[in-house]
Amino acid sequence: MRTVNVDLGERSYPIYIGSGLLSHIGQYFKDHGISLNSPLMIVTDDHVAPHYLTLLEKLLLEAGYDTVSKVVKAGETSKSLSVLEEVMTTAIEGKLDRNSTVIALGGGVVGDLAGFAAATYMRGIKFVQIPTTILAHDSSVGGKVAVNHPLAKNMIGAFHQPEMVLYDLDTLQTLPPRDVASGLSEMVKHGLIRDGDFARWCREHASELLALDPEALEYGLALGCSIKADVVSRDERENDLRAILNLGHTIGHAIEAVAGYGEYMHGEAIAIGMAGSARLAVRLGRDASIYDETVSMLQSLRLPVTMSSHLSTDDIMDAMKHDKKFREGHMLFIIPDSIGSVSIVKDIPEQLVRETIDQLREGGETHV
Amino acid sequence: MRTVNVDLGERSYPIYIGSGLLSHIGQYFKDHGISLNSPLMIVTDDHVAPHYLTLLEKLLLEAGYDTVSKVVKAGETSKSLSVLEEVMTTAIEGKLDRNSTVIALGGGVVGDLAGFAAATYMRGIKFVQIPTTILAHDSSVGGKVAVNHPLAKNMIGAFHQPEMVLYDLDTLQTLPPRDVASGLSEMVKHGLIRDGDFARWCREHASELLALDPEALEYGLALGCSIKADVVSRDERENDLRAILNLGHTIGHAIEAVAGYGEYMHGEAIAIGMAGSARLAVRLGRDASIYDETVSMLQSLRLPVTMSSHLSTDDIMDAMKHDKKFREGHMLFIIPDSIGSVSIVKDIPEQLVRETIDQLREGGETHV
Ligand SMILES: NC(=O)c1ccc[n+]([C@@H]2O[C@H](COP(=O)([O-])OP(=O)(O)OC[C@H]3O[C@@H](n4cnc5c(N)ncnc54)[C@H](O)[C@@H]3O)[C@@H](O)[C@H]2O)c1
Ligand SMILES: NC(=O)c1ccc[n+]([C@@H]2O[C@H](COP(=O)([O-])OP(=O)(O)OC[C@H]3O[C@@H](n4cnc5c(N)ncnc54)[C@H](O)[C@@H]3O)[C@@H](O)[C@H]2O)c1
Ligand SMILES: [Zn+2]
Ligand SMILES: [Zn+2]
Repeated sequence: MRTVNVDLGERSYPIYIGSGLLSHIGQYFKDHGISLNSPLMIVTDDHVAPHYLTLLEKLLLEAGYDTVSKVVKAGETSKSLSVLEEVMTTAIEGKLDRNSTVIALGGGVVGDLAGFAAATYMRGIKFVQIPTTILAHDSSVGGKVAVNHPLAKNMIGAFHQPEMVLYDLDTLQTLPPRDVASGLSEMVKHGLIRDGDFARWCREHASELLALDPEALEYGLALGCSIKADVVSRDERENDLRAILNLGHTIGHAIEAVAGYGEYMHGEAIAIGMAGSARLAVRLGRDASIYDETVSMLQSLRLPVTMSSHLSTDDIMDAMKHDKKFREGHMLFIIPDSIGSVSIVKDIPEQLVRETIDQLREGGETHV
Repeated sequence: MRTVNVDLGERSYPIYIGSGLLSHIGQYFKDHGISLNSPLMIVTDDHVAPHYLTLLEKLLLEAGYDTVSKVVKAGETSKSLSVLEEVMTTAIEGKLDRNSTVIALGGGVVGDLAGFAAATYMRGIKFVQIPTTILAHDSSVGGKVAVNHPLAKNMIGAFHQPEMVLYDLDTLQTLPPRDVASGLSEMVKHGLIRDGDFARWCREHASELLALDPEALEYGLALGCSIKADVVSRDERENDLRAILNLGHTIGHAIEAVAGYGEYMHGEAIAIGMAGSARLAVRLGRDASIYDETVSMLQSLRLPVTMSSHLSTDDIMDAMKHDKKFREGHMLFIIPDSIGSVSIVKDIPEQLVRETIDQLREGGETHV
């Protein structure tokens, strides 16, 4: 078992990572001062619930807690204000009070939704995350919670740090393979931005990671979380440094939007985006090995590094220009300087970006 | 012109109170660092808009600001998640960014709705209040913002302090008389909890206040705001002291709920509640003059001190028991010790409360 501390002053919290943690949840809750006198609410989705909800309810009951549960439909559409209202209905009917805690049992969708409910129920109550995806190692650090607006993702939200995160690796065993790879994309991203050795470790242990080997997962998730925690603790409210976490995301988000949400998983789209950033790096004069290494790392994790040929460069460029940060930064990208280190670069010539997008298309040139 | 500072460390802000302030809004905005480069959003309602929206838009345009406006239906029903989503649509279509500011032009409803939109748009942007009701002197201090859930009021919200509050007394001139009296109820409440001289001043200047005399309003609103600001700055997140602001509210909320929202205005219901608390005080052994003085103050402001005879004591008792704070506190009430000072008292015998409610009914006994 490993513990990663997210250091945010008064709002600091630990992430416990290991196998078999769930069965000790009662003790963890007591250690964190979760009151026995106020009901808890578990929020989960209908893919996760059949595997773990009854177990979690039983463990909490045995520990002396009253719980109510809300199961939402799996998928991004549950991150909406109307589902939030349903979650709030469960909270009110379950008589949650200002000392109650909301528990997110699931991936990033449930984490963001339940976290926003916790941030706003009675103007803010406690929150605990029990992540069940690899991608959630990313979303469980930093306190960003949100729902989507029909016109834009994550538009309505808050910063709300959890009391603790309980990452039981056993729950990952039922995760579909594409979700596994997609989550590993964010893991290797954490290596690429701050720790080259870790990025290389991900490549070397790719088969263990893909096979959900507990030892490899424990190490990889702990290191991924601690890199993100380090960045976030230096810049909690996303003023500056935190932007480096967006490596691959400008292109990635544009690909997700143009392809239509669903064709690419988030981790897949940002893998293509990271390949694009590495291409840009080389075009801007960084060492050519950056691109080759990045691609080999992503491919070892069975992640795509090119996008479907039906996606047009014009559409991708347009989608990127809708991104306000990108627009104000005048073609701002996170660009690798080497494996494990990145810079925030502005004013990249539009022509260079276009050519890079062209090359990302399947069947495009495979070297820079 | 008077300025009340709400002292909350980093989140401190001023409330400017006076006549003719709106015409200087451009200067106020610049002094407070409201950027010219990001669009602003004005949120108001359809009673207030015809009087002041065009003027405000024009003043901001002249000062060099881009604005978009959202006009919601007047009334409590606009404090909902679905109206929040509409407000967010306007913000997104108006291209508000992380440096934008949301302006609430209106009473407590618009303040709470727009404030919650500001608290959650892109996880929080700036907020300015331009209150146009007397009651809003209460809601503009303390940073509580919220929308309602169909099952409970103010259930979904946040703490989000404004950058500043611009209280232009000229805008109060169009306020309907019942709203005037209802707002004055919270003003005299601020006197009753912390400043007996101010409560007496309200009685002595009741006719000027009811006639919206600018000098009386300026003094009364400034003192009301500063009393609330003092309480809030000692207890920003409502842990303890802040509870005294609820004088009259336990009974008042129950009356509002049982009568059906709309029959009583909020200030009217809490006036009855304050009369009830004063009765309880005397029954608990405090000086009998507390009740007589309280009633004379409320009546001078044309506020009711008894409730309609069709409201049953059982229903009121039931409604109070739904209030969790009240329930956990075992019949907790804010009880005057003298005019200008209150205590938080627990474990008041239920029979005493029932008798007090009985006496609050129209035609009940007029003395304690
Ligand atoms: N808050 C943040 O900082 C942050 C960071 C990154 C991503 N996110 C958000 O996270 C979301 C994506 O996260 P995600 O990939 O975890 O999505 P997800 O929660 O939708 O999970 C992916 C799929 O796997 C299923 N699933 C989850 N755990 C499972 C398990 N153990 N066994 C079987 N099935 C399981 C889910 O039901 C879902 O169908 C997005 O909404 C994104 O915006 C937030
Ligand atoms: N956030 C807080 O701390 C806090 C404190 C107290 C009350 N509140 C909230 O405030 C709300 C009540 O506030 P309110 O009484 O100001 O309600 P309101 O905003 O509904 O205003 C009352 C009525 O007056 C109209 N109006 C407002 N200004 C006017 C003007 N200048 N001329 C003509 N008409 C005008 C409005 O359209 C409305 O019809 C409630 O929702 C309550 O929950 C919040
Ligand atoms: Zn991501
Ligand atoms: Zn009130």
